Amino acid sequence: MATGRTERPAQRGRGIPEATVARLPLYLRALSALSERGVPTVSSEELAAAAGVNSAKLRKDLSYLGSYGTRGVGYDVEYLVYQISRELGLTQDWPVAIIGIGNLGHALANYGGFASRGFRVAALLDADRAVTGQRIAGMAVRHMDDLEQIVREDHVSIGVITTPAPAAQEVADRLVAAGITSILNFAPTVLSVPEGVDVRKVDLSIELQILAFHEQRKSGLDPVAGPVPARPSKPGERGDLPEVMPA
Amino acid sequence: MATGRTERPAQRGRGIPEATVARLPLYLRALSALSERGVPTVSSEELAAAAGVNSAKLRKDLSYLGSYGTRGVGYDVEYLVYQISRELGLTQDWPVAIIGIGNLGHALANYGGFASRGFRVAALLDADRAVTGQRIAGMAVRHMDDLEQIVREDHVSIGVITTPAPAAQEVADRLVAAGITSILNFAPTVLSVPEGVDVRKVDLSIELQILAFHEQRKSGLDPVAGPVPARPSKPGERGDLPEVMPA
Repeated sequence: MATGRTERPAQRGRGIPEATVARLPLYLRALSALSERGVPTVSSEELAAAAGVNSAKLRKDLSYLGSYGTRGVGYDVEYLVYQISRELGLTQDWPVAIIGIGNLGHALANYGGFASRGFRVAALLDADRAVTGQRIAGMAVRHMDDLEQIVREDHVSIGVITTPAPAAQEVADRLVAAGITSILNFAPTVLSVPEGVDVRKVDLSIELQILAFHEQRKSGLDPVAGPVPARPSKPGERGDLPEVMPA
Repeated sequence: MATGRTERPAQRGRGIPEATVARLPLYLRALSALSERGVPTVSSEELAAAAGVNSAKLRKDLSYLGSYGTRGVGYDVEYLVYQISRELGLTQDWPVAIIGIGNLGHALANYGGFASRGFRVAALLDADRAVTGQRIAGMAVRHMDDLEQIVREDHVSIGVITTPAPAAQEVADRLVAAGITSILNFAPTVLSVPEGVDVRKVDLSIELQILAFHEQRKSGLDPVAGPVPARPSKPGERGDLPEVMPA
């Protein structure tokens, strides 16, 4: 989920709770996998299991979309893909600019998963003149000097920051000044942006953490079953812990 | 969440629901941002807002960890980071092998967010002898022929697949044969693995989809307020839709 200045009221727009919005892409991912395997319909229980939520919550979430499935049949996979895509706005074209064309920016420029969801990479930018002019994914990398012009002329909706951490805030400031109100931040730093600008931060280790939980269970290294690690070090700094947070 | 063969019962191990496990990394990400800003304590409302869940759910989730906060004070940020890290198994060392050293594999090899969570990149592998031997992030890229030996000698716990889609299944099969039971798949394909092997698939467009939802609202392109897009095309294939799924 979001960190930094992206807190917002629980409901917005047509009254879909923020937590439901955050789950729609997960349903879409599970549905896309079913679609790729040619599965025509899915029960709420199956879809809930694939998405990692309980089925009552899934049904409630989908009811906000006016989607209730059919008793004994379930949900039509293709139509639900369409409904969720429409709700998320993925049936529109969202021109995206990627700023910072190192290995990650390069990988994202070639990432098929963006275009298939309506995110068209419209521009690649870098501050390094050794990189600008290179052709990647059929596009010439442009210089940061042209950012404002590119945003205007290419109708860029979303800025994707893949610079090193020290450069990210300045890039965010320039995107905001150029009128961008949605930023996806891959740089390992927290960005400050004005009210009305949405920033979402990608943490590539999130899924690894969930794997680690299960790997720990499988290898019998349960933190309770196994030896309990010591309290965190730096005892001097933590002298008040027992009162603040009883173990 | 997981797709493919990662469905599992709602509860496991110490009885922490799977959905709670999936939220712990999100709390950890929000807490880490607070920690970086030097914030010592956080209320359940603030932390819930930062993580995009409601505060009752947050309190329930954290109660599984034996963490209840203190009335009027909230949660100790550093201690909660430690508790969640311990629960997820992040206080252990998880040697990771990255297979497929294109741009994404290269980017992940240098990604600071892995090491800070206990995921040590122990080995880089590629099938292309033009790539093997190159030094990236202080390591020489090894050839796929050495996979089984590397898994054994370096005690690799988790395999990260960053190959092109057509190569991913074969790599997964070899990882499983070598004894790996946790796979993180960045390749845009669904993997088949035996029972007992956890696969999680990363979709880099998930956060973009949430941004698109809000961008759509901000730009007044609400699918209900604005012109309603037509039903999906391919009408011949969808003739039974009205019965299966009333609009």
